Amino acid sequence: MTTPLTLQEIQEAAAKLAGRVVRTPVHRLRSAELEQAVGGDTELHLKLELLQLTGTFKARAALLNVLALSADAHSRGVTAISAGNHAIAVAFAAAAAGVSAKVVMIATANPLRVALCRSHGAEIVFAPDAHAGFAMVERIAAEEGRTFIHPFEGRTTALGTATLGLELCEQLPGLQAVIVPIGGGGLCAGVASAVKLLAPQCEVIGVEPFGADSMYRSFAAGEPRSIERVATIADSLGAPYALPISFEYCRRNVDELVRVNDDELRSAMRFLLRNAKLAVEPAGAAATAALLGPARERLRGKRVAAIVCGSNIDEATYAKLIS
Amino acid sequence: MTTPLTLQEIQEAAAKLAGRVVRTPVHRLRSAELEQAVGGDTELHLKLELLQLTGTFKARAALLNVLALSADAHSRGVTAISAGNHAIAVAFAAAAAGVSAKVVMIATANPLRVALCRSHGAEIVFAPDAHAGFAMVERIAAEEGRTFIHPFEGRTTALGTATLGLELCEQLPGLQAVIVPIGGGGLCAGVASAVKLLAPQCEVIGVEPFGADSMYRSFAAGEPRSIERVATIADSLGAPYALPISFEYCRRNVDELVRVNDDELRSAMRFLLRNAKLAVEPAGAAATAALLGPARERLRGKRVAAIVCGSNIDEATYAKLIS
Repeated sequence: MTTPLTLQEIQEAAAKLAGRVVRTPVHRLRSAELEQAVGGDTELHLKLELLQLTGTFKARAALLNVLALSADAHSRGVTAISAGNHAIAVAFAAAAAGVSAKVVMIATANPLRVALCRSHGAEIVFAPDAHAGFAMVERIAAEEGRTFIHPFEGRTTALGTATLGLELCEQLPGLQAVIVPIGGGGLCAGVASAVKLLAPQCEVIGVEPFGADSMYRSFAAGEPRSIERVATIADSLGAPYALPISFEYCRRNVDELVRVNDDELRSAMRFLLRNAKLAVEPAGAAATAALLGPARERLRGKRVAAIVCGSNIDEATYAKLIS
Repeated sequence: MTTPLTLQEIQEAAAKLAGRVVRTPVHRLRSAELEQAVGGDTELHLKLELLQLTGTFKARAALLNVLALSADAHSRGVTAISAGNHAIAVAFAAAAAGVSAKVVMIATANPLRVALCRSHGAEIVFAPDAHAGFAMVERIAAEEGRTFIHPFEGRTTALGTATLGLELCEQLPGLQAVIVPIGGGGLCAGVASAVKLLAPQCEVIGVEPFGADSMYRSFAAGEPRSIERVATIADSLGAPYALPISFEYCRRNVDELVRVNDDELRSAMRFLLRNAKLAVEPAGAAATAALLGPARERLRGKRVAAIVCGSNIDEATYAKLIS
């Protein structure tokens, strides 16, 4: 049984991160196009977590995990596996805490993300695919005694992302709904827990891509499930399975899960360009896609926050996706 | 002789606009790419005025001008001419104050900007070119008694943009330099005036595109000058001449003018996409282009603000510009 996060723990986590990560701004979006899409009485507030250090929310949990290392673990360093944004976050967190990082990245990772990871001084080793990569990172952890930092699972990880939920509730009193993107569910586990502690009446809507809907299937099954194949343009949300802790926090605190397809993601990316002047990778547009699509009627007339959870994308890939 | 703006006037203008425009956030940009470009001891703070209502700083002065109308002028309405962002701002301001707006737009105006202008309820008439457009707007003003709101000239206009400078100084104590884009100079006239009143030691750097450097030439001549031909991708900075009031406020308060070319603007657009996750039209990248280029050495080691003055751009045009 997973013990729920407490408000005190979340506040302590926020205190540990204060001054070390960015308190990202919230921007109320107002435009005729938005009004036409969701009605004039629906308020959309964008939580601009893409302005976080490392470009995504992942900096929060990565740093909290690194700060929690024992002196011995600290001296042995950390390791992680990721197609991109988690790798960057672990590299950043390790550098910030003076810890050595050796990160496994998949060979197909976006070159910008590889460069960002390297820019924080991490050692990078490449794996031909995710399967080989997981074997590699296990070997590194075993042989070098490095602490493995999971991309989305774990209580400390949920506490890290919960600080985003805490921040949001402080920034937006009277919030009535929040939309949270779900890959593995680490972000949603923390945000949903924090929001339900601080604003129990606030609805929490999770959003997954259709081609990576492991949490949706896990909810339906009542337990964590895997999917056979990940197929979505939202590569940063492409987790192939749910795991017990984040599943449990999501199950307890999420009111509804919705799914969006690639066309809806692309359309939301273009909407954010035109209306919010943001250039986001597909994952960063997922919450907005949910509001413009499957969650629109449910959220009509409410004060809604959409978490723009992050973005690290090069201009060529971005231009292609919005064209 | 143009009377300088006073701090009290600027504060009064800010009080009039409070709650009616957005207090736009400032974001400190941190990235390895920035560090490599300008050195690790140069701080870059982006004033995110592209999150302003209407998408640009122009909402401030347009609204201040409309709020200053006499009861009679109020009932007769306003008119303006613009290729885009000023038209949108005047339409917004008129709607906000319950005033009728009839705006002349050039036929080549970006369709997104036309749609945005229309979305605020303004009547739009099209002119084949700027020359015909100016004749048209003069006729509208004369025949219909509408007040003409100039895109960049005038004391009230400078007071409007000065509220951005005031805001910036409040948000960034100890600011050592600010970079301000110049088209006609209305933004710079106000921002530079406010900054020199509130932080006299802060350097003010103006930036113009090479193909629209009317202020640069006016500085050299010691009086307002025209240029023969506007040729820049930064269409929103394409003013063909300087005028006395904005010239005078700029001349008194700007420490240096620099110029950037189209390649530098495009490169800064891509830099902002990768590092700040912003999708900006060329004008919105001008201040960043100045820091990465001609102003880099002068500003090394300083706490610098770059004004991301606005952006209204459709995805097709944007994708083409960054490719």
